[in-house]
Amino acid sequence: MAQIYDRVALIGLGLIASSMFWAMKRGGLAGEVTGFARSAETRQTARDIGLCDVVCDDILDAVRDADLVVLCVPVGVMGAVAAQIAPALKQGATVTDVGSVKRDVIDSVAPHLPEGVHFVAGHPLAGTEHSGPTSGFAELFDNRWCLLVPAEGSDPAATAQLRHLWEGMGSKVEEMDADHHDLVLAVTSHAPHLIAYTMVGVADDLRRVTDSEVIQYSAAGFRDFTRIAASDPTMWRDVFLSNKDATLEILGRFTEELFALQRAIRQGDGDHLHAYFTRTRAIRRGIIEAGQDTDAPDFGRGGKA
Amino acid sequence: MAQIYDRVALIGLGLIASSMFWAMKRGGLAGEVTGFARSAETRQTARDIGLCDVVCDDILDAVRDADLVVLCVPVGVMGAVAAQIAPALKQGATVTDVGSVKRDVIDSVAPHLPEGVHFVAGHPLAGTEHSGPTSGFAELFDNRWCLLVPAEGSDPAATAQLRHLWEGMGSKVEEMDADHHDLVLAVTSHAPHLIAYTMVGVADDLRRVTDSEVIQYSAAGFRDFTRIAASDPTMWRDVFLSNKDATLEILGRFTEELFALQRAIRQGDGDHLHAYFTRTRAIRRGIIEAGQDTDAPDFGRGGKA
Repeated sequence: MAQIYDRVALIGLGLIASSMFWAMKRGGLAGEVTGFARSAETRQTARDIGLCDVVCDDILDAVRDADLVVLCVPVGVMGAVAAQIAPALKQGATVTDVGSVKRDVIDSVAPHLPEGVHFVAGHPLAGTEHSGPTSGFAELFDNRWCLLVPAEGSDPAATAQLRHLWEGMGSKVEEMDADHHDLVLAVTSHAPHLIAYTMVGVADDLRRVTDSEVIQYSAAGFRDFTRIAASDPTMWRDVFLSNKDATLEILGRFTEELFALQRAIRQGDGDHLHAYFTRTRAIRRGIIEAGQDTDAPDFGRGGKA
Repeated sequence: MAQIYDRVALIGLGLIASSMFWAMKRGGLAGEVTGFARSAETRQTARDIGLCDVVCDDILDAVRDADLVVLCVPVGVMGAVAAQIAPALKQGATVTDVGSVKRDVIDSVAPHLPEGVHFVAGHPLAGTEHSGPTSGFAELFDNRWCLLVPAEGSDPAATAQLRHLWEGMGSKVEEMDADHHDLVLAVTSHAPHLIAYTMVGVADDLRRVTDSEVIQYSAAGFRDFTRIAASDPTMWRDVFLSNKDATLEILGRFTEELFALQRAIRQGDGDHLHAYFTRTRAIRRGIIEAGQDTDAPDFGRGGKA
């Protein structure tokens, strides 16, 4: 594959940045990749494992000559980081991010960027429950979506170039409006994560059932919740705080539906329950047909109470 | 492995019964296995794929000479099936079940069984989101728990023999009191399933986000919910109706916690959220250490919003 950017800077060296590095290397997509992390320990780990061609101790050195700067930091600090790097950004460079929320990131990053720098927000829908510089791998983005949210009036050429990079890293790319992105993600990701965190917290709290019982018998369904409830706490705190409105809207609807099902259980309304459960099956089939999961039986997982 | 029962009857030929058949064959655990299903179509499918040594058209023929009768029907019809087979049960036979709820099953099955027949309720914590006679496979129970709930005053030898069968099919076996079983399962399975069903239903209902968007972007977390929300609707209707009290208790606690987290989001209380999410991570580690899941990154799944 052809090189797409001469020089790429990765700011923040966690799961996503490290996977981007390995995916860019795999595809020969970048001439040189610089990296910066706030923590000296993370920078040392990155150097030890060969993550980035150059790991800089100064964030300005990392971005100075970069044609593409990727902000891979928690959503809550995107604005501060943008303000910090702004003076060193090269004219004509593109700045992007990988945050899970787009309206808040755009509002906090865009005002800091100088004229002549293109801002194209982004969000790869890929990840694992692991975090940190050693958790990345080149295949993370293969066949996964990356959503791009170009700022209003931004250069279409900058967006097209970034699209090629993501496609080169294995992603399918779609462009989307920031507010719609945040609502879609509230449904498909943010609300499910909060719900999973809640259920795991409840299980941990019960006095009459021990943690070891919960853990031992988790294969009956609970385990699927713990996987997503093990994700990085800082990242998720920032996601909920910065996508507050959409998340609360979806949670409100969720609670409403849950109450209706609880009432059906209490009243013994089997028809209501059966009809509801039949409807939800169809969505699962759609996901399998869309290639976002396989139909292979997941041993001992789900399905059986 | 040595043969444990001369003749086993499987009543109801879905995922669990068919997996039991293949697991018993794998281990040489039963001399002859008879099977019965209410639907003629299911019986024909079973004959076509060689599921059971003999598929009987009459339920009484299936159980008549059986040393072990396994009720693999939805929890809601266990009592009726027990009443139906009672006259044909052999003296000294053991009756068990694989239902996800134990108090209700014991209360509805035990009164129908004649003197001299042993009742040892059971519950294998294994499954997939698939159902029906073709969905079974011999490895389903490998390394999974099976919980046995012997009726009060029942013959310890009958329980021991059933334990050997489950161990021969690959399971780890534990004995448990019926009410405690129902509470543990409400936490680890029943509440998580209802919550997953609810979230999938909410996503399906939203007007501003299309089903195809939900499906397309499901890898961001939602997908883990759809897997468990695709399980058999009849089975799950019966589970919730027959484990009503414990399920509603857990859902009540869940709602309480969810409201507290929603309030933290609304008020911007990042510390509360961060502390909560940090605590839930530990449970995930416990599950991995207990061997009930692997630590392998699940490509594109969970973790990243």
